[in-house]
Amino acid sequence: LECYCDVAHFFINGVLPYQVAVDAVNMTTQAAKVTLGMTVKQALDVLRKDKNSTESLARIYLVDEEGRLKGKIRLRELAFSAWDVLVDELMEEVELSILATTDQEEAAQMFTKYDMTLLPVVDEYSRLLGVITHDDILEILEEESTEDIEKMSGIAGEQSEESYLNTRIITHFKRRFPWLLVLALLAISSGYVMLRFEHVLNSVYLLALYLPMVVAAGGNTGGQAATMVIRAMSLGELEAGSTVKVIIKELSLGLLLGVFLGGCIALVTFFILPVFDPPLAGITISAFALAASVALAAQITTSTLTGALLPLGARAINLDPAVVAAPAITTLVDISGMIIYFTATKAILSL
Amino acid sequence: LECYCDVAHFFINGVLPYQVAVDAVNMTTQAAKVTLGMTVKQALDVLRKDKNSTESLARIYLVDEEGRLKGKIRLRELAFSAWDVLVDELMEEVELSILATTDQEEAAQMFTKYDMTLLPVVDEYSRLLGVITHDDILEILEEESTEDIEKMSGIAGEQSEESYLNTRIITHFKRRFPWLLVLALLAISSGYVMLRFEHVLNSVYLLALYLPMVVAAGGNTGGQAATMVIRAMSLGELEAGSTVKVIIKELSLGLLLGVFLGGCIALVTFFILPVFDPPLAGITISAFALAASVALAAQITTSTLTGALLPLGARAINLDPAVVAAPAITTLVDISGMIIYFTATKAILSL
Repeated sequence: LECYCDVAHFFINGVLPYQVAVDAVNMTTQAAKVTLGMTVKQALDVLRKDKNSTESLARIYLVDEEGRLKGKIRLRELAFSAWDVLVDELMEEVELSILATTDQEEAAQMFTKYDMTLLPVVDEYSRLLGVITHDDILEILEEESTEDIEKMSGIAGEQSEESYLNTRIITHFKRRFPWLLVLALLAISSGYVMLRFEHVLNSVYLLALYLPMVVAAGGNTGGQAATMVIRAMSLGELEAGSTVKVIIKELSLGLLLGVFLGGCIALVTFFILPVFDPPLAGITISAFALAASVALAAQITTSTLTGALLPLGARAINLDPAVVAAPAITTLVDISGMIIYFTATKAILSL
Repeated sequence: LECYCDVAHFFINGVLPYQVAVDAVNMTTQAAKVTLGMTVKQALDVLRKDKNSTESLARIYLVDEEGRLKGKIRLRELAFSAWDVLVDELMEEVELSILATTDQEEAAQMFTKYDMTLLPVVDEYSRLLGVITHDDILEILEEESTEDIEKMSGIAGEQSEESYLNTRIITHFKRRFPWLLVLALLAISSGYVMLRFEHVLNSVYLLALYLPMVVAAGGNTGGQAATMVIRAMSLGELEAGSTVKVIIKELSLGLLLGVFLGGCIALVTFFILPVFDPPLAGITISAFALAASVALAAQITTSTLTGALLPLGARAINLDPAVVAAPAITTLVDISGMIIYFTATKAILSL
């Protein structure tokens, strides 16, 4: 009877209005529960009747007559106590519970943060609706991190329940095509910059040698910065107040990376390039080395900052940070890279 | 005493030689265990003495006198049974256990696959060494997916225990710099291709307009394919035998994506480009549209296949698939993209 009442109570008062948030699939609806005022023996009898329908007895919850969550008790306490003890005496406080309307990602973060086995789900009157178990959380975490990874590569849509091999080609196509098209159209801007700087490229055609490198280095550093920031965000580390810290950190890093990479490329240019007798068109090797290194350093510094700021900015305007990541950043810094490279070399080489 | 013996047994016979694999940090060494032949009352007494030192009583393991794992029993069975019943009668079979020498990632996969709470860890004589709990697994999973994500962005080294904000700038620098330098040096090859095809670019400078787009589209499709394959591999989906299936799938997808993207770009070129009155240098808009689209389609098809094959190939020679991913693929398809673009346009436009 207890069991029947539970289920009825559930569908009338509980689960249905909340399915949007802590999803029905990811909430094990049956919590092991006993009512305040029972003895250990009564509690064991109630649980025994119910034992096949409750997924886990790792935590047993105590509720009052209205079904409000009052405390918890361990099965081990019941097992090791005399049968006439009142469950109220064995009750421990419930430190954490979660509202059914909370986002499932937040539930997962609570789990990993506090090393929990079970998390009770309550409604706004603190009535116990059910529990989330650790294997619900494993599923949520796996879904969420797959989604993050996919979004960062410009793969659209919800992570499908099906596996890679079982997903039909047309579904893969639909998830990958939209971003590719948008990015391809955006990438024409980089080409437009190249067309505009035709005269610079034509006057010293050697500039073509380092152009792809400077552009790609921006994509790589920007991608690294975005990855670190997005991951820190999805592990719940970066609150809104951390923006300044992130900016300082990535700006310093960008400068450091830029100076060192620029220095390496200057050395390579100065000592190794002459061996290949390149077409210099009237400029000196050292002037070319200087121009290319300055452009590279500037590109890396701006790209690192862009990569870190874009996800933070996306979140600030309620966009998903992972969606605007790697490919969008690459496209953006491709354009800035072209402009930085041609502007810097033009100025330094007086073209 | 039971407790003391356990710990001693542990350090003498058990944990130390195995720490390399199922890491000491990630194995909760204390399993709740009772010996065959005990009564329920004896078992409860043993567990009661031990109850603060065992992290979880969700599964109690039965061992013989040599400590070999023989079966398991639920605390609920003990709690609901008469005190003189032998634990042997309540014993259930242990379906799954894991050798201490197994990789922790494999342990995590078993957990998610079979929805487990606890996984017993045994040595090669099937002696029970300890258990892995679900929160050990949460940590492993979080570490592993962070590592995958980071490697895919060319971030070197083990995922640090510290968080993003607490990691020092010099540590961030050391993890990001090596890949950036290697990739920058490799990217000079793309520039070399550009230099080599100077005459093609100079004869129809309009070709510069779509060059970055064709190159970048390869990076994006290759990155998507690599992401899907790496994620499927790290979720344990792709066995060695799946290689052919993956090749067929990604080849079809590459062709499909290439044809559709090429088609879109041809339409854009044919209908929109003339509005901007571009410098045509003696070729027709339709010839340019055809050449650019064919090059784009070829680049996307080969990049998709490259993106899928590189992680599979890496695994085949025992390299970590995630390490060779996104940035390495981008660099590779940057070079192939330059070659494909110039070769295709040169041939189609008879330059």
